[in-house]
Amino acid sequence: MVTAWPKNFPGLGVGAQRLADNITAATDGRVTVKLYAAGELVPAFEVFDAVANRTAEIYHSPDYYFQGKHPAFAFFTAVPMGLITSEFNAWIMHGGGQALWNELSGRFGIKPFAAGNTGTQMGGWFRNEITSVDDLQGLKFRAPGMGGEVLRKLGVNVVALPAGEIFQALQSGAIDATEFVGPLNDLAFGFYRVAKYYYYPGFQEPSAAITAGINQAAFDELSKTDQIIVQQCCTADNDNVYAEFTAKNGQALSTLVNQHGVQLKKYPDDVFDGFAKASEEVVAAIGEHDDLAKRIRDSYLKARKDLRAWTQIAEQAFTNERTRTLGDA
Amino acid sequence: MVTAWPKNFPGLGVGAQRLADNITAATDGRVTVKLYAAGELVPAFEVFDAVANRTAEIYHSPDYYFQGKHPAFAFFTAVPMGLITSEFNAWIMHGGGQALWNELSGRFGIKPFAAGNTGTQMGGWFRNEITSVDDLQGLKFRAPGMGGEVLRKLGVNVVALPAGEIFQALQSGAIDATEFVGPLNDLAFGFYRVAKYYYYPGFQEPSAAITAGINQAAFDELSKTDQIIVQQCCTADNDNVYAEFTAKNGQALSTLVNQHGVQLKKYPDDVFDGFAKASEEVVAAIGEHDDLAKRIRDSYLKARKDLRAWTQIAEQAFTNERTRTLGDA
Repeated sequence: MVTAWPKNFPGLGVGAQRLADNITAATDGRVTVKLYAAGELVPAFEVFDAVANRTAEIYHSPDYYFQGKHPAFAFFTAVPMGLITSEFNAWIMHGGGQALWNELSGRFGIKPFAAGNTGTQMGGWFRNEITSVDDLQGLKFRAPGMGGEVLRKLGVNVVALPAGEIFQALQSGAIDATEFVGPLNDLAFGFYRVAKYYYYPGFQEPSAAITAGINQAAFDELSKTDQIIVQQCCTADNDNVYAEFTAKNGQALSTLVNQHGVQLKKYPDDVFDGFAKASEEVVAAIGEHDDLAKRIRDSYLKARKDLRAWTQIAEQAFTNERTRTLGDA
Repeated sequence: MVTAWPKNFPGLGVGAQRLADNITAATDGRVTVKLYAAGELVPAFEVFDAVANRTAEIYHSPDYYFQGKHPAFAFFTAVPMGLITSEFNAWIMHGGGQALWNELSGRFGIKPFAAGNTGTQMGGWFRNEITSVDDLQGLKFRAPGMGGEVLRKLGVNVVALPAGEIFQALQSGAIDATEFVGPLNDLAFGFYRVAKYYYYPGFQEPSAAITAGINQAAFDELSKTDQIIVQQCCTADNDNVYAEFTAKNGQALSTLVNQHGVQLKKYPDDVFDGFAKASEEVVAAIGEHDDLAKRIRDSYLKARKDLRAWTQIAEQAFTNERTRTLGDA
């Protein structure tokens, strides 16, 4: 298993190791999974190619790192203004998403399973307060993927930087702001030491799925029993990784705010309005790439319509009533 | 496996069968799980005793059916004004919940695993509109568990009825209202034919977990490998059942509203205020039962405080911004 993470990276590297260990134990060693951290066997962004050509047999990474292979991979990680985790899992497991994902990854000889989720991410770290959409003009903002494209439409000077270079760039003023993951990972990277404003919610990643991508030939060589074990272990870790992020993001957020003086800020309405409008344009455009991209986009957007109608009267309505009646936590 | 459900009951009976099949297949038949629907081997409410005395070896049921054994079992299914599914999983898997659950179920020789969740449930079906908290006085309302206790405090005439008798009681006017699960199950039971008002959100079950409760001696006899397989299959179905409810509740809700003329209504603020206040009293009181109940209640309430602080700026803030910018679905 090649991964996009440093060894024991909170939530994600830890989840990859747990998945590797569970597959090894549950198959009684018939499938022994050895984990390689990013850079050990291949660099983070090359794990897809390594599995496609069977240098490795599983990757553990978000699929939007592979948008260069096909832009529709973004739909299987995170979509600006898209699905939250519960909705994404509903689309994948019971809404036609898995079949489309199999078709897309299958073009590269890879069998994909959802194997984790970060939940809704934060908006990002800013050295200065953002009071209106005008403050985005020319802002040097580190942001990957579709979120970066959305920001570019709003006049942001979008910068691509690997995780290891963000802190230094924020400190030196080479960038003014950065998107990353959420409190658990962001605390570890120490961004609070050079940027005090921490904005929410993250329009760019309402959820972010992690893929266990398996070389199709390697998967086909497994017994039916071992195929089921691998699939069950991936789905189990899909649940467990999200639970770990949910549990630990809250604790890390409290540390950031109460011990490090971080200013937690909600994006002003006009800024979020800008994000939402530009996001819809960027997402619509991806569907123009080819027939498969169109079918994936249309399935995703139909799922979003149906699922958010339910979320609005279920989890969303309940949590709003809980806040209204019990007050802020 | 004895279950609390009819065979192929949407979401829940289907999930039980999938879990039984996955354990059988993933252990290559070393652990062959045969499913008995409610009433086939023992009645629904007796599945706990059947597993405790090893008449059966696994039950698939919500644990709040066993509050008569110990009131703290309610915390491992659903708590009025409590945790939503993502938060419940965070508490169980990464917040100390599993250890407390093991201790409680262990008193009865049972090893518990989370194996599914309905997500946030609906408030219930009413023959007449509810315009203020005064309308609850004397209302004949079918409601089980802690939710029933909360309603009793508000002057409701709470009625206990098994699922199979609800429709007839609503039709005859023996009851005025009923709580059940959510659109997927409620549509199948046809309540819309005799009650037109469908209220949300359900204060009584912000999430409702399903337990796979395994006879401890039977579990201990399994090889370490098979124990891991059983645990991974339960966690995988914990994810899958929630995904299925999320996907299908939205479709069923649309059918109820658009094809059957159901009136979807949000509870008025003063009614929900009453629910919230009475809920806090009922939950607090459970902790007075014994030391274990107190530790479980305190752990649950601390988790609620920490986790809803995170939910408020993550999934809750994002979904609210999504509704504000994209409009109602």
